[in-house]
Amino acid sequence: MRKIILIAFITLIGCNKSIGHGNIQKEKQIFVCPPCGESYDSITYEKEGICPYCDMKLIPKTSLGTKKNANKKDLTICFYLQDNVELLDFAGPMEVFTAAGFKVFTVSKTKDRITSQGVLTIIPEYSIQDAPKSDVMVFFGGSHSTPTNDPAVISWIKSRKKNTDYFISVCTGAFIMGKAGILDNLTATTFHSQIEALQKALPTTKVLPNVRFVDNGNVITTAGISAGIDGALHFVAKIKGEEFAKKIAKIIEYDKWIPEQGLIVNKK
Amino acid sequence: MRKIILIAFITLIGCNKSIGHGNIQKEKQIFVCPPCGESYDSITYEKEGICPYCDMKLIPKTSLGTKKNANKKDLTICFYLQDNVELLDFAGPMEVFTAAGFKVFTVSKTKDRITSQGVLTIIPEYSIQDAPKSDVMVFFGGSHSTPTNDPAVISWIKSRKKNTDYFISVCTGAFIMGKAGILDNLTATTFHSQIEALQKALPTTKVLPNVRFVDNGNVITTAGISAGIDGALHFVAKIKGEEFAKKIAKIIEYDKWIPEQGLIVNKK
Repeated sequence: MRKIILIAFITLIGCNKSIGHGNIQKEKQIFVCPPCGESYDSITYEKEGICPYCDMKLIPKTSLGTKKNANKKDLTICFYLQDNVELLDFAGPMEVFTAAGFKVFTVSKTKDRITSQGVLTIIPEYSIQDAPKSDVMVFFGGSHSTPTNDPAVISWIKSRKKNTDYFISVCTGAFIMGKAGILDNLTATTFHSQIEALQKALPTTKVLPNVRFVDNGNVITTAGISAGIDGALHFVAKIKGEEFAKKIAKIIEYDKWIPEQGLIVNKK
Repeated sequence: MRKIILIAFITLIGCNKSIGHGNIQKEKQIFVCPPCGESYDSITYEKEGICPYCDMKLIPKTSLGTKKNANKKDLTICFYLQDNVELLDFAGPMEVFTAAGFKVFTVSKTKDRITSQGVLTIIPEYSIQDAPKSDVMVFFGGSHSTPTNDPAVISWIKSRKKNTDYFISVCTGAFIMGKAGILDNLTATTFHSQIEALQKALPTTKVLPNVRFVDNGNVITTAGISAGIDGALHFVAKIKGEEFAKKIAKIIEYDKWIPEQGLIVNKK
């Protein structure tokens, strides 16, 4: 499916390029499997057809050039996942960000197994001891009080402020970011039942209900659970343009995205 | 967050019960931590307050009785996850079904680690060798051709037909179900770019574009990726009623759910 998304994406962004291609040019094309990080990504084929390794439709190598340009602003994004993290809180943004070409990795306090919804067993890629730096850090709800009340985790977040360009929270992930001082004197939102609790926890933050996301420029918070999808699409629009984000929304069939349901305090 | 959902849910479904409760009755109440499968779920408290084990707000034990009634149709749901499974394909329904109180478990061909989006490392709970029976089986996109072309997996699915009440697919999971003969002579949908391919693969199936889900009674297929959320909410409505499903949609802040965007061929 990841490849289907890539094909759909390349088709969408590459359609203008294709118009006017004659047969002669087509005969000279080289075809490749849509890239997915496997060794066979680099194998080239002289004809259209099916990848013998993964059964996906080969695409013209030239179309990857188009994709490369579209991805010139690719960012690295650190997903902090605590045990009992809410599944859709992080899965929505992870789907959107990977579809948009961002490089996502997962971090937890340790590399021990964690569970989500009491059902899904996950192995974090990094611990807070060895996580590489990233352009973006994202925090989620689901037993948020564990990292919020863990001095080691909060200290680790604070230590990364200087080298992180954007901070994003989904749902009650706002409590974690807030504890690290990232929401001080800003406007924010969170899960609908926790608006008052967040306001109480963060007296200098203006906490708003009834908004899908709030963008302060470098710090974005979203409402609960599925609202993370909206916030992630907004972030993609911010980095790569709204037309690009709309294409991602179309690919993941989230036609329901309404950018205006968010509040932009600072466009930065 | 799972507990927040439970609290929000119990508040929602329990609000009518609470009206008219006097102080005398309140003084006699016993309080518990909202259940999450931990040993401290069974500890009772004489006063309102915070759970000393997980910091969540205690709830009246009587409200669990209300929840129990609402969950009288709880089902077991088997999520078949292949390597490279599309994240939001399964995460949306898993969020919805666990919030609705269904018992979800994960199965893959083996218990080896799998990845989703090339980013998330998952350990399946069961293999096809030891997976327990379930009321419902669900299949997803993302390298769907691997299980579709694996005789052992298809044979395993076929062997479970007799004891499974409902089959659901999200996105190109329809190819897997189709290969097992579950979509024969039915109406179905799939990821928007794969409509023609599915029709070609399943000549006796009527494959429709531009519909969020298709319900044949015991067999439901949904469109791509985020449409799995809509299909899952429809299934919850089917089992527990539309009002209940709307409450789940409200809790996960998926106010965008429009039940009429699906096609019900057979209400069964």
